[in-house]
Amino acid sequence: MNTSIDKLLKSLTLEEKAALVAGADMWKTQEIERAGVPSITMFDGTNGVRKPGSTQEMGLFSENMPATCYPTGVALGSTWNTELIEEVGEALGRESLTLDTQILLGPGVNMKRSPLGGRNFEYYSEDPVLTGELGAAMVNGLQRMGVGASVKHFAGNNQETEKMVSNSVVDERTLREIYLTAFEIIVKKANPWTVMTSYNLLNGTYTSEHDFLLRQVLREEWGYDGVVMSDWTAVHDRLKSLRAGLDLEMPGPAKYNAVKLVSAVRSGELDESVLDASVRRMLELVAKVTAAAGSKEARQPWDVDAHHELARRAAAESIVLLKNENGILPLAAGKLRRLAVIGQKAKKPRYQGGGSARVTPTRLDIPYDEIAAMVGGEDRLAYAEGYRNDNEPDDALIEESVWLAIQAEAAVLFVGQPEGTESEGYDSKTIDLPPVQVKLIQEVAAAQPNCIVVLCNGTAVAMQEWIGGVPAVLEMWLSGQGSGRAVADILFGRVNPSGKLSETFPVKLSDTPSYLTFGDGNQQAVYSEGIFTGYRYYDKKELEPLFPFGHGLSYTSFEYGGLRVRTAGGVATVEVDIRNAGDLAGQEVVQLYVQDEESRLIRPVKELKGFCKLQLEPGETKTAVFTLTPRDFSYYDPKRGQWVAESGWFMLMAGSSSADIRATARVDMAFEAQQSPSLHRYSLIRDWMAESLSREVLERFMERMNGQISDPVSLSEQSLEFLGDFPLIKLIQLYGQEMLIERSPESMVDELLATVHQTKV
Amino acid sequence: MNTSIDKLLKSLTLEEKAALVAGADMWKTQEIERAGVPSITMFDGTNGVRKPGSTQEMGLFSENMPATCYPTGVALGSTWNTELIEEVGEALGRESLTLDTQILLGPGVNMKRSPLGGRNFEYYSEDPVLTGELGAAMVNGLQRMGVGASVKHFAGNNQETEKMVSNSVVDERTLREIYLTAFEIIVKKANPWTVMTSYNLLNGTYTSEHDFLLRQVLREEWGYDGVVMSDWTAVHDRLKSLRAGLDLEMPGPAKYNAVKLVSAVRSGELDESVLDASVRRMLELVAKVTAAAGSKEARQPWDVDAHHELARRAAAESIVLLKNENGILPLAAGKLRRLAVIGQKAKKPRYQGGGSARVTPTRLDIPYDEIAAMVGGEDRLAYAEGYRNDNEPDDALIEESVWLAIQAEAAVLFVGQPEGTESEGYDSKTIDLPPVQVKLIQEVAAAQPNCIVVLCNGTAVAMQEWIGGVPAVLEMWLSGQGSGRAVADILFGRVNPSGKLSETFPVKLSDTPSYLTFGDGNQQAVYSEGIFTGYRYYDKKELEPLFPFGHGLSYTSFEYGGLRVRTAGGVATVEVDIRNAGDLAGQEVVQLYVQDEESRLIRPVKELKGFCKLQLEPGETKTAVFTLTPRDFSYYDPKRGQWVAESGWFMLMAGSSSADIRATARVDMAFEAQQSPSLHRYSLIRDWMAESLSREVLERFMERMNGQISDPVSLSEQSLEFLGDFPLIKLIQLYGQEMLIERSPESMVDELLATVHQTKV
Repeated sequence: MNTSIDKLLKSLTLEEKAALVAGADMWKTQEIERAGVPSITMFDGTNGVRKPGSTQEMGLFSENMPATCYPTGVALGSTWNTELIEEVGEALGRESLTLDTQILLGPGVNMKRSPLGGRNFEYYSEDPVLTGELGAAMVNGLQRMGVGASVKHFAGNNQETEKMVSNSVVDERTLREIYLTAFEIIVKKANPWTVMTSYNLLNGTYTSEHDFLLRQVLREEWGYDGVVMSDWTAVHDRLKSLRAGLDLEMPGPAKYNAVKLVSAVRSGELDESVLDASVRRMLELVAKVTAAAGSKEARQPWDVDAHHELARRAAAESIVLLKNENGILPLAAGKLRRLAVIGQKAKKPRYQGGGSARVTPTRLDIPYDEIAAMVGGEDRLAYAEGYRNDNEPDDALIEESVWLAIQAEAAVLFVGQPEGTESEGYDSKTIDLPPVQVKLIQEVAAAQPNCIVVLCNGTAVAMQEWIGGVPAVLEMWLSGQGSGRAVADILFGRVNPSGKLSETFPVKLSDTPSYLTFGDGNQQAVYSEGIFTGYRYYDKKELEPLFPFGHGLSYTSFEYGGLRVRTAGGVATVEVDIRNAGDLAGQEVVQLYVQDEESRLIRPVKELKGFCKLQLEPGETKTAVFTLTPRDFSYYDPKRGQWVAESGWFMLMAGSSSADIRATARVDMAFEAQQSPSLHRYSLIRDWMAESLSREVLERFMERMNGQISDPVSLSEQSLEFLGDFPLIKLIQLYGQEMLIERSPESMVDELLATVHQTKV
Repeated sequence: MNTSIDKLLKSLTLEEKAALVAGADMWKTQEIERAGVPSITMFDGTNGVRKPGSTQEMGLFSENMPATCYPTGVALGSTWNTELIEEVGEALGRESLTLDTQILLGPGVNMKRSPLGGRNFEYYSEDPVLTGELGAAMVNGLQRMGVGASVKHFAGNNQETEKMVSNSVVDERTLREIYLTAFEIIVKKANPWTVMTSYNLLNGTYTSEHDFLLRQVLREEWGYDGVVMSDWTAVHDRLKSLRAGLDLEMPGPAKYNAVKLVSAVRSGELDESVLDASVRRMLELVAKVTAAAGSKEARQPWDVDAHHELARRAAAESIVLLKNENGILPLAAGKLRRLAVIGQKAKKPRYQGGGSARVTPTRLDIPYDEIAAMVGGEDRLAYAEGYRNDNEPDDALIEESVWLAIQAEAAVLFVGQPEGTESEGYDSKTIDLPPVQVKLIQEVAAAQPNCIVVLCNGTAVAMQEWIGGVPAVLEMWLSGQGSGRAVADILFGRVNPSGKLSETFPVKLSDTPSYLTFGDGNQQAVYSEGIFTGYRYYDKKELEPLFPFGHGLSYTSFEYGGLRVRTAGGVATVEVDIRNAGDLAGQEVVQLYVQDEESRLIRPVKELKGFCKLQLEPGETKTAVFTLTPRDFSYYDPKRGQWVAESGWFMLMAGSSSADIRATARVDMAFEAQQSPSLHRYSLIRDWMAESLSREVLERFMERMNGQISDPVSLSEQSLEFLGDFPLIKLIQLYGQEMLIERSPESMVDELLATVHQTKV
């Protein structure tokens, strides 16, 4: 393969090579007919293939080719089920092949900094490990079918506001621990064929030109050898981006840039080998996708019904039972004489978000219809629209709803953010439901105590105003074309809910971690909460959320045994038995968190480092097994430029949510010792005192200095409290100037450093 | 004057000039005997002169020359009394003259980012306007006596942890609105003779070498013409610092740097005029201080008793009555048969902090003695030590205290942070009182309901664990050598308390604005809370503090009338009548806050823009008058690089604290219109749409483009929601590539920009 690609590469003219590193139009790469290089077609698709009528159309504001609309990212994220997501990935791959799509532009794996994020519905979680594991499963599923993934948006793109000109200011530790980790996991576990850069600047440089991000971290540190492509129009300086390792500019043909590249090579400004490296990766990608795309099977239509069933099953696993007082759910379908179904969204479901992820579905389950089928016909239902236009209160609709609710045995309210509020392109302004809907819930709940709220939205919402009066709440998310059936299955207990929140639900917007800076409209996004995103923030600030990360109820109950831990060589193996203690089969998501009891740098109270989803029959017990490596105990130390696991005590916690820890174990971990950072001109006194050798050199020097000055200084415990944070050079400047005539303090410190280093060798 | 300085400057050799821009030893500048230039002596002193035995000694770990120890910065800050602080400034100047000190190294006017800040006790407040006004008063008082101030630490030094190597990362808006404003007010209102730079780096550059900070902002924008000096050893690169405008390196002689400067001038690397500018400012400073220092009166000792009285008076005004249930305070001295005085600090008072601000007092009032005098002798008192070593619980001491408290009619507990916890050089780890003291309070309060807690500490402490059981709390601060008498005066009602908190007291440490990043030990201080420091944070986060900024009770009560507002030309004059509605004379601090109802950038809920302290006899009414200029309504707009007052509605609020607003008025302010930022290559579509001319140019272009491409795009309301945040250039990249062959999108946009600009002219 490599030889043939070598040969192919050599056979290409400079102009052909320059053309290959940009698209040919909106959605495909350049074909080089003469050399037998076909073009590759790619389309949007994080939860379904979005294929416009031609490869010249953007197709954002029109209908596209039908394809299965699977649950959106937030919904898939709430399944915590890697196998299921891999299955969805395979199905997406299958559909891509039929739709002549060689690369599907997903998954999106950015972290959620704020529930206002316009694209939150596309992303999996606020946690990097959960996102990384789920993202890797999706990529593996897709690529198993011979269709390339494009993991996006790399990196530091966590808002829509001014995203094309906004500079994300993120310190390196935060970047590494929170914003790069998911990408790192996916690159290492699934080797995606392409990675897509984001629009934004990161610490002052466009990510499409970011040498640190693309070359140093992605390629050198993580060993990534696939294609890096730009988000659509994200390239600014084509030379700079190529040098940083951005292979493919999209869309194309961007002829002006081909001209630039050719003349830069000719003039010697650009080394042709840089261009060749990108072209080689493009040719390798072509080779990969051609295999599957060429097969006969690929052209066959997919099984639309089977894929719809998968969409339903995935939707059902994504729904989160947030509250269920007195076991009001599940409803008994056979016993109900009359059920009120309230809310426009029961008949006009909201099941996906807006922007490039918007799919034209093959079919669509309507919640009202599915409920009707389940209770045995519409006679047993009473429907009220409840609200029509979210900005215009209509009290008559509310009155009608209350009236119907009173006459029924129970009421199910379908509410959620208005259509169009969650989309690529802009962020939200609020996390509250529209006041009209809040009033509807309040009045129905006051009249009908058996009131179940079903939420259709793409990210956390506030519920403080109404949740106290409501015994049950189901978070249905935007769960795709099968979600109507899925919610009916859960309401009536045909499926036992097993979704868990992949993001924290706050009490109010002002409680959220990035509230003070998010979307401040200043072409700048300061990641002010640092590593304390999501539950890391609520934990550390001792601030109670409405529903914690990882929360989700079941119709059965699970018992946790004690943690069994074995440690060896910096690795811990953790086992915990889970027993289904109820009468219904169900699934439990077991979550493993790690807490560092003491560390040099401030750390989160706990961090998710493992999870697994277990299917348990009533009475059945299974064992959840986790392996924790040194990285799982580490923080990123920007001073040393590496991940550091400090030996010492850690608390391991297994829980049913981040706030519902069921079993813990304290372990004393031993890791390879970290070298002290080597001394330099501005090292602090306490750094000099930290090792015996340098301490001795320092003390001999202090003696010498004190002999020559009028106000001698001793490094006693008392004075060290004050002087410990002084760099040695400043101690000399402060006390030792009398002995410095022509000599500078710098040369003095350099001499001492030399003594330390010589003696060491 | 200038002519003689010109002449003097010309007469100096290059070597003499190089010597003049550094100290001669630890505390004085270089004398040039030949040319008749005397040296200037300067000593530490933010709340008292700290003069060591000689100008060669640092004197940090020994006693120094006696001088009056006035209340520390936090205590002075709590007086909110500019006249009083000016009086203290004069007294400090008087003592400086006697102690042959020409420059007193204060005041420190840094903002408090966290109650953990080791030097908080030296600083006035968390609010820039309060700090600026009080700092200006101090400088004016001092300099009226012919003694120069040194306003410090300029800038971005808000922690002690690693302060010599730590980089403060502060965005420009935050820097301008919070961290520079106090310096700006002081420079403009009091023209301090010197400004001292800090140790830290600010956004990557040492402040001693910071061209933006020292040259652009301080000198060019604010018009500062005095001397800029380094903190002790803060100079790194002498050439760079001189070029940035740092005149004086301290301490000296730093001969190695003089050598460097001389050879840099000789080699042409340094323009001699740069050195001359600094030397000129040094000579001007010498001229200023020589006048007063030379007078006979100056050498006279000051009136030690009168200054002690002033220290007492200032201390009394600084004490804040935090809580006073059922009017338990003041105590009736005559009626008390037995009062329990509990706590070591009643006999061994803690009245100042550690480090360079530590003064050797001339006298010292002991709270216990003063209380004894007031109740008519020690027979009426019972004293228990309560605690001895804060780390070793001693239940016997607590039992004794409880026993005495039970037998008395009331108990006064003196508690506070242990000696040595608040100091230059390190930050605190906790805001809780030592557990031993907490236990003492809890047990005494449980036994004796008339329990009064007196706090001796330099910054906010947490009280959640015990305040519920205690009817009265007095915050005594570290109020200097007269604080023992002052607190007795307040306990027994000889003085009516009038102090107000100049910093917010949080419920718990994790509530504080900078909690997640403060002192993270990574040689970096990220100012993650941005402009939301202090009460700005609690307001915005809707988080209730223990005691809000500006809070402080009185033994009388004050009634507020309505706000009277007149506006003209962007200036608002605000008047409010305050009436003493109680039976006692007292002082009220009237606080004026401004709220912007709508603005382009996120803003605090309210900001302090004025305050005044009124002395009112019972029944008396006075009018507080404030003038608000456009700056008082402005935010700093980093996009435009200027302060912006947006026309529109503002709420003006007069209050007795930031949370106790007593009178409001809504005003519609009209300011000079701001020009829209001019369009550039990366301007967003919505910027182009914002003005009719550019909108027309854009629309004509879109028509032209749509005629040439296969997927035309319209700028409808719907598509603008998505495309509004696109830079025009990216819209062309996305949709218009078919018409771009050799032409780049850049040249296309440049052409449109030219059309806009031509038509404008």
